[in-house]
Amino acid sequence: MVNLTWEVLNVIGTMAFAISGAIVAMREEYDLLGVYVLSFVTAFGGGAVRNVLLGLPVSLLWEQQMLFIIVFVVVSLLMVLPQLIIKPWNRWGHFFDAIGLSAFAIQGAMLASQAGHSLAAVIVAATLTGTGGGIIRDVLVGRKPLVFRDEIYALWAALAGFIVGMGWVIPPWTTYFLFVIVVVLRMVSVFYKWRL
Amino acid sequence: MVNLTWEVLNVIGTMAFAISGAIVAMREEYDLLGVYVLSFVTAFGGGAVRNVLLGLPVSLLWEQQMLFIIVFVVVSLLMVLPQLIIKPWNRWGHFFDAIGLSAFAIQGAMLASQAGHSLAAVIVAATLTGTGGGIIRDVLVGRKPLVFRDEIYALWAALAGFIVGMGWVIPPWTTYFLFVIVVVLRMVSVFYKWRL
Amino acid sequence: MVNLTWEVLNVIGTMAFAISGAIVAMREEYDLLGVYVLSFVTAFGGGAVRNVLLGLPVSLLWEQQMLFIIVFVVVSLLMVLPQLIIKPWNRWGHFFDAIGLSAFAIQGAMLASQAGHSLAAVIVAATLTGTGGGIIRDVLVGRKPLVFRDEIYALWAALAGFIVGMGWVIPPWTTYFLFVIVVVLRMVSVFYKWRL
Repeated sequence: MVNLTWEVLNVIGTMAFAISGAIVAMREEYDLLGVYVLSFVTAFGGGAVRNVLLGLPVSLLWEQQMLFIIVFVVVSLLMVLPQLIIKPWNRWGHFFDAIGLSAFAIQGAMLASQAGHSLAAVIVAATLTGTGGGIIRDVLVGRKPLVFRDEIYALWAALAGFIVGMGWVIPPWTTYFLFVIVVVLRMVSVFYKWRL
Repeated sequence: MVNLTWEVLNVIGTMAFAISGAIVAMREEYDLLGVYVLSFVTAFGGGAVRNVLLGLPVSLLWEQQMLFIIVFVVVSLLMVLPQLIIKPWNRWGHFFDAIGLSAFAIQGAMLASQAGHSLAAVIVAATLTGTGGGIIRDVLVGRKPLVFRDEIYALWAALAGFIVGMGWVIPPWTTYFLFVIVVVLRMVSVFYKWRL
Repeated sequence: MVNLTWEVLNVIGTMAFAISGAIVAMREEYDLLGVYVLSFVTAFGGGAVRNVLLGLPVSLLWEQQMLFIIVFVVVSLLMVLPQLIIKPWNRWGHFFDAIGLSAFAIQGAMLASQAGHSLAAVIVAATLTGTGGGIIRDVLVGRKPLVFRDEIYALWAALAGFIVGMGWVIPPWTTYFLFVIVVVLRMVSVFYKWRL
């Protein structure tokens, strides 16, 4: 079940980062190619950072043929309905970013935890793998990374790391529950402007 | 012949990215050291990204003694004739960047293809490895990466990936031919401002 | 003794980059979480770049439980005395950055040298590993990287690489001596605005 849970989180996180990259690119009025490139770089660049940090072979990324095609189709669909998307950007952009953050943070924590690393290491791994994709996306378009803005962001990735590191979740269902909780906490931070 | 073709493309791509880094650094009026650092970071940072993404050991970079010395000499030569270079920057800068893009994209495609990955994966690998060096260079100097500007850029790397992934090139000669075609297509895009 | 020397330099370099990240984040008026994130990303991101470039497993980073906790405590202490720190930022910020630069450059040179690489490769490895952490930090906050500013910076990392590559240092004591020399040379460059 662990492998399946990992795979499900991987698909969800990759898709979500791809969509958040596409939304940012459309917002910045990039051309067609720019939207595809930022989507793929955010999604698979985030995955590359995760794999490098966790010691997984980066070349695993290339075996996800289905995922490439799904990302391509979804980004293409997004572009034919931009007027619907761009308006409520702040909500949707933050929402998909939150999904990617949560999925990749839990993956980072699961792998670091299985490898027998210390609790502190699991928390740091969760934070860095969760925030990596979004940092790449924001640096590439010259925006201040979300992780350094005011509303609570990295804390939720660290919290996911703490909970996984303590062994409080058992795949699959409590893991998915944690995934949803982290997304909700992040979105509540955005709506109510929770700060530290 | 494959290994030799790979090596030739590696030398060409590394040199070209080094020169494009030097031209950008001179354009931004960096001091002597800044020019060397941006050249080396663009050239070998691009190579590091390529190796990480393709699963090659990054430490292979350090075995290229001859290449370090050649890059050093060429960049030094460039700096004694800056008045000739800086004027027509837009053309020369784009030209060397196009060479690096083409060489690294074909390398990424060749390796992903030999590893038996799917066509979609070969195209993504070609695009990310081709554009990596230029993205690092532009982010470091705070410019909008070429890949997100208006003229067609990433599409040519993806095209190289498609052609290699379909098995339509046989090293060495058709590979070199594809390399030249991609450079020409990119430069034509720059001159005629082809957009999507 | 080599392993112990490596470990000592690793702790010093990681701590110093963490502090320099925290100082920059406080200077930019990041919130609590932002300060922690930039500290950890600068410190362990710099370590990740070093490990990737040198071919070491990045997952080694996660075994440094003690270091995570020390960094966390030191950054927390820094934040309760910000008024003391922020004033003389230019000096302290440059000082901790110089320590990180020196420690990571010598590590890069030691490892490349032990692996039997050429002198040119040792110099390049020292320069890229030494400057990596600082470049990540500066890019993330949108500042021009120190390595491209006017006072001599990368040259001292390259010098450390040259001296280690020539086999002129024997761990531990001459290595520590070289470490101090590089820090001093960098700080003298800052104070007297040495340029090239």
